[in-house]
Amino acid sequence: MFVTMKPHATQAEFDAVVEKIKALGLTPHPITGTERKVVAVIGHTGGMDPDDLFGTMPGVAEALRVSQPFKLVSREVKEEDTVIDVGGVPLGGQAIVIMAGPCSVESKDQILETAHAVKAAGACFLRGGAFKPRTSPYEFQGLREDGLKLLALAREQTGLKVVTEVKDTETLDMVASYADVLQIGARNMQNYSLLEKVGALDKPVLLKRGLSATIREWLMAAEYIVSKGNAKVALCERGIRTFETATRNTLDINAIPVLKALTHLPVIVDPSHGIGLRPHVPAIARAGIAAGADGLIIEVHPHPEKALSDGHQSLTPTEFGSLMRQVCVIAGAVGRPVFEPR
Amino acid sequence: MFVTMKPHATQAEFDAVVEKIKALGLTPHPITGTERKVVAVIGHTGGMDPDDLFGTMPGVAEALRVSQPFKLVSREVKEEDTVIDVGGVPLGGQAIVIMAGPCSVESKDQILETAHAVKAAGACFLRGGAFKPRTSPYEFQGLREDGLKLLALAREQTGLKVVTEVKDTETLDMVASYADVLQIGARNMQNYSLLEKVGALDKPVLLKRGLSATIREWLMAAEYIVSKGNAKVALCERGIRTFETATRNTLDINAIPVLKALTHLPVIVDPSHGIGLRPHVPAIARAGIAAGADGLIIEVHPHPEKALSDGHQSLTPTEFGSLMRQVCVIAGAVGRPVFEPR
Amino acid sequence: MFVTMKPHATQAEFDAVVEKIKALGLTPHPITGTERKVVAVIGHTGGMDPDDLFGTMPGVAEALRVSQPFKLVSREVKEEDTVIDVGGVPLGGQAIVIMAGPCSVESKDQILETAHAVKAAGACFLRGGAFKPRTSPYEFQGLREDGLKLLALAREQTGLKVVTEVKDTETLDMVASYADVLQIGARNMQNYSLLEKVGALDKPVLLKRGLSATIREWLMAAEYIVSKGNAKVALCERGIRTFETATRNTLDINAIPVLKALTHLPVIVDPSHGIGLRPHVPAIARAGIAAGADGLIIEVHPHPEKALSDGHQSLTPTEFGSLMRQVCVIAGAVGRPVFEPR
Amino acid sequence: MFVTMKPHATQAEFDAVVEKIKALGLTPHPITGTERKVVAVIGHTGGMDPDDLFGTMPGVAEALRVSQPFKLVSREVKEEDTVIDVGGVPLGGQAIVIMAGPCSVESKDQILETAHAVKAAGACFLRGGAFKPRTSPYEFQGLREDGLKLLALAREQTGLKVVTEVKDTETLDMVASYADVLQIGARNMQNYSLLEKVGALDKPVLLKRGLSATIREWLMAAEYIVSKGNAKVALCERGIRTFETATRNTLDINAIPVLKALTHLPVIVDPSHGIGLRPHVPAIARAGIAAGADGLIIEVHPHPEKALSDGHQSLTPTEFGSLMRQVCVIAGAVGRPVFEPR
Repeated sequence: MFVTMKPHATQAEFDAVVEKIKALGLTPHPITGTERKVVAVIGHTGGMDPDDLFGTMPGVAEALRVSQPFKLVSREVKEEDTVIDVGGVPLGGQAIVIMAGPCSVESKDQILETAHAVKAAGACFLRGGAFKPRTSPYEFQGLREDGLKLLALAREQTGLKVVTEVKDTETLDMVASYADVLQIGARNMQNYSLLEKVGALDKPVLLKRGLSATIREWLMAAEYIVSKGNAKVALCERGIRTFETATRNTLDINAIPVLKALTHLPVIVDPSHGIGLRPHVPAIARAGIAAGADGLIIEVHPHPEKALSDGHQSLTPTEFGSLMRQVCVIAGAVGRPVFEPR
Repeated sequence: MFVTMKPHATQAEFDAVVEKIKALGLTPHPITGTERKVVAVIGHTGGMDPDDLFGTMPGVAEALRVSQPFKLVSREVKEEDTVIDVGGVPLGGQAIVIMAGPCSVESKDQILETAHAVKAAGACFLRGGAFKPRTSPYEFQGLREDGLKLLALAREQTGLKVVTEVKDTETLDMVASYADVLQIGARNMQNYSLLEKVGALDKPVLLKRGLSATIREWLMAAEYIVSKGNAKVALCERGIRTFETATRNTLDINAIPVLKALTHLPVIVDPSHGIGLRPHVPAIARAGIAAGADGLIIEVHPHPEKALSDGHQSLTPTEFGSLMRQVCVIAGAVGRPVFEPR
Repeated sequence: MFVTMKPHATQAEFDAVVEKIKALGLTPHPITGTERKVVAVIGHTGGMDPDDLFGTMPGVAEALRVSQPFKLVSREVKEEDTVIDVGGVPLGGQAIVIMAGPCSVESKDQILETAHAVKAAGACFLRGGAFKPRTSPYEFQGLREDGLKLLALAREQTGLKVVTEVKDTETLDMVASYADVLQIGARNMQNYSLLEKVGALDKPVLLKRGLSATIREWLMAAEYIVSKGNAKVALCERGIRTFETATRNTLDINAIPVLKALTHLPVIVDPSHGIGLRPHVPAIARAGIAAGADGLIIEVHPHPEKALSDGHQSLTPTEFGSLMRQVCVIAGAVGRPVFEPR
Repeated sequence: MFVTMKPHATQAEFDAVVEKIKALGLTPHPITGTERKVVAVIGHTGGMDPDDLFGTMPGVAEALRVSQPFKLVSREVKEEDTVIDVGGVPLGGQAIVIMAGPCSVESKDQILETAHAVKAAGACFLRGGAFKPRTSPYEFQGLREDGLKLLALAREQTGLKVVTEVKDTETLDMVASYADVLQIGARNMQNYSLLEKVGALDKPVLLKRGLSATIREWLMAAEYIVSKGNAKVALCERGIRTFETATRNTLDINAIPVLKALTHLPVIVDPSHGIGLRPHVPAIARAGIAAGADGLIIEVHPHPEKALSDGHQSLTPTEFGSLMRQVCVIAGAVGRPVFEPR
């Protein structure tokens, strides 16, 4: 159950609601950082009528039961699409956004060449990892802060917004000081301490789906972030783990329409990880947009054969240009523009 | 290894090839029913040079090694797309075909009403099950031959081609005498006796993917049919089984481009089973076409709420009409027409 | 809902029950071949009281509601363990039975040598495939009837009971004329036509679990057989398909206690297919018995390195002897004897 | 490739090896905290002969190639079983150890009652969560440091060693100051920052398998810890995620023998999470020991029906006592004692 206060409700009115919740033997869970005061009611509320109990209290705008275990991220609680303003670029909403760049930032030349190329092709976000969580402790782990600086330089030169992964709470402040969007990787989707800390920032988040996370668990992970006050969360489908070995992962195309129905958060598709095979990335990119995704994140590398990671799934700038033209046509076919960077 | 004879090669020339294969300690496996004589060479051929051994023999057009375990269905053996002529309707090739109809044939009114509606909306195939393999022995098992007769009646009235499932070898001849396309269901994908018998017919086949079949196993199942002489096989992706419980199955969108690269056979997408949720069927249908599928098979029922099976995933005729318009737009966006029935 | 008649109920009393079911708008489904007359009541029976409706009718022993979708195979309907008498060898019940032999019957020497060896080590069933469903049409498909004759010869010489796979309805009568137990393979678990035909025989059946079948679907497949009158069904867990690639399949050890609670049918474990790696077969065999299985089926080959199929998971006779001693100790630890062939 | 120095090798000898590695264009990765100096050689070493290159250098004991991607945890590098000394209790080795206790520490009475009960029944470790990673931000998250203090109190009263979960780097020092063994949960198996920090401590670790982690990825996660210098790592199989919905997870029994062959680290089985159904925990516990596990971790709660988490899979103390007796018998059957706390 959720109680939402009117815009100008007083603290005393809010406190009265909280007291009433306690008096009913339930636990109030105030949601911080949202525009209006909202309090979640935790406990066994079955049989209670929200409107009857709270609807007529002074300052209360609405009291309603939410059937899903995720609350703040659900369409039941907020019907209209969330549009995240990333320095002038809308993430979510009618226009489709394209994020592109290398798996890892490797060098100044590599990242600048890529940035200029994807900008020219129509991307508005530059992706690139400076901190790389790798399966093996003996593999390249990223350029760390040097990589972040190179991303900032590329932003300066191109105007692209920077999406980069944060892999732990220790480096969160550093990464947040460079990034426009904080990416949380699949392996960290249920790293709750990281989710909570990111939830306390005022910074857009791209939350990737865990390798074997259900849609419900994924939305609960988003709920962790939003319940701490940061409502700027976008979801990224990047493939799940199945028995199929012909592809790196199995992109769950079903998740796109299911998410769009369950939540108001933007949904991005990552075809590069979703299939893991360069020649087939465009087909999956097109499918993602056709299914209703709000954007794409694509791995692009000027020389995939020399990439330090994920070269087999990275497009060349030329291939990316071709993909962008295909995406524009499909976007048009579903009645949506592709956001054009200025 | 495969040896393909020239169009007018003599039986004696063919026999000489077969004898040479035996002399090498290998097993010849002649492929029946193909236009030209072809013989597969089974055994350890590593280190042998096909061209050297067979290329200069009289009557031999080509001898080549095939790296995949599936041979006749692979693009290595036949590069151009297979187009199956179903009484004037091309299955495969440039134009996209739409198959639609109820899960089960339930009554004359139901099947005729559906047939006229899907024809009007632009389908060229009518789907409908007369023999239903059901998980429980106590559930509705189909109208059997009465259902087949109703499908034939609907074909007569509308000109639609009939796609219907054959579930065993006992009823194969009966079903084949009514059907234009024989559907082999997911649970029968590795029913090799059925595959072999269907392979001996001259009748198009729609082979559904098994619930946990890898792409390779699926192509091997198709190889069973083609190796017996029936090359008219189309593949149908209908979702695989994963841990996700929010949807009935997980449509493997990755399979579409992977198949199109590995095989020359047509690929059809079944979004109805692939997601199993009526409101989301159109999104997955669009995604399938955008990913490169050659057609769709969609469950449509005039009164889904009264359907004896699969009502929760069946579209109404009105919803199907809307989906058809979306599909036409997406097809156009990938440069392909939707085949129009005359 | 199920109505069970008294042992000496008359046909008229049974017919009266059937008529009453129809009068209620429901469908009677008489169960054939069981000792007592039983009729399943199909339809919406929610809200009806079985005892009230049928309990006082003449000749009725019991009327009860079954909560599971599987009925005849459930412990709700029959509490005591089913023990199948296979020519004097009890399959199910207190004593543990061991089935062993090669994947395929390959030659007279091979099958006789194996039979004598596994008999000496304590097996009471000889397994061996004469009809092999293979993923590829180009692989060894079994010796067919010649293989069955060799199995019969081995039985004659050793007294072992023969377990062999039946892969289709065409060869069912032939296979049944040689086999003591008909094995239905994983790929045929939902081949309903085969299940129904096997259900009409008076011959024990070993029903393997499908590669991605849920426990419920598996029990429904058993229900198909039993509902046709053949109650002599044992279940065989042989591993399911998961994302793990270090092993051939993932043996679902959880299925053993879950099945023992849900059904009265015997449960056999196949560690050879369940893990697919020779050195680890004994560990999984021990685990199966410790978890409560009623028996094991093990692949044994005199020369695994020369086996035409499954050599990598077959034990040598010596290794099998060692496994048998381990199994006896574990069986003792769970308070059960291993059945000794005479 | 790995180069291991002799026990009394000098720093100069070690440095010479490091320089030679660099001179070859490879990257030296010194392993810290191990008894002897070891350096991993990262890069393309194919075609090089380790012994030829390093074997004769002063101070070098051994240079060898390791075929697996995990190195320090592999049996190739260290053949004998690792036995971790936890304050006098051996984790790993011949004797089997039992860990038991509630999912969450809930109160003083609850944890003390449980501790005394499991001690009496034969456990030597007390498990209990003070920091609980929960799927929902609105669920009970644990008593935090108060919970740790209660665990310490229980240890004081019973002598049991404490196993408790650490969920992030922020609370690591605090948890490590109370715990005898640090548990890393399934969702944190690839939280590399946490693994690295735990690797820098001198404290035993119980590393649970991720929900969809392959055995190889799991061993790579252990390699992260060991490569930072902490060799006291035990692995805990707790079930993987599959399509089966009858059980909470699918315990991968195959993983036990596969791990015992690949690694020298101890392997513990968690049947409580592995099946998630109280009545069936003992069967899976028995199976785990029979398959070769070195210990068990079992959820026990004095009043499962009132537990704040995982009540449906927790045993009562009485049930746990019965399980312990079964485990002792099975352990005896595989020739191993159950470690008895003094």
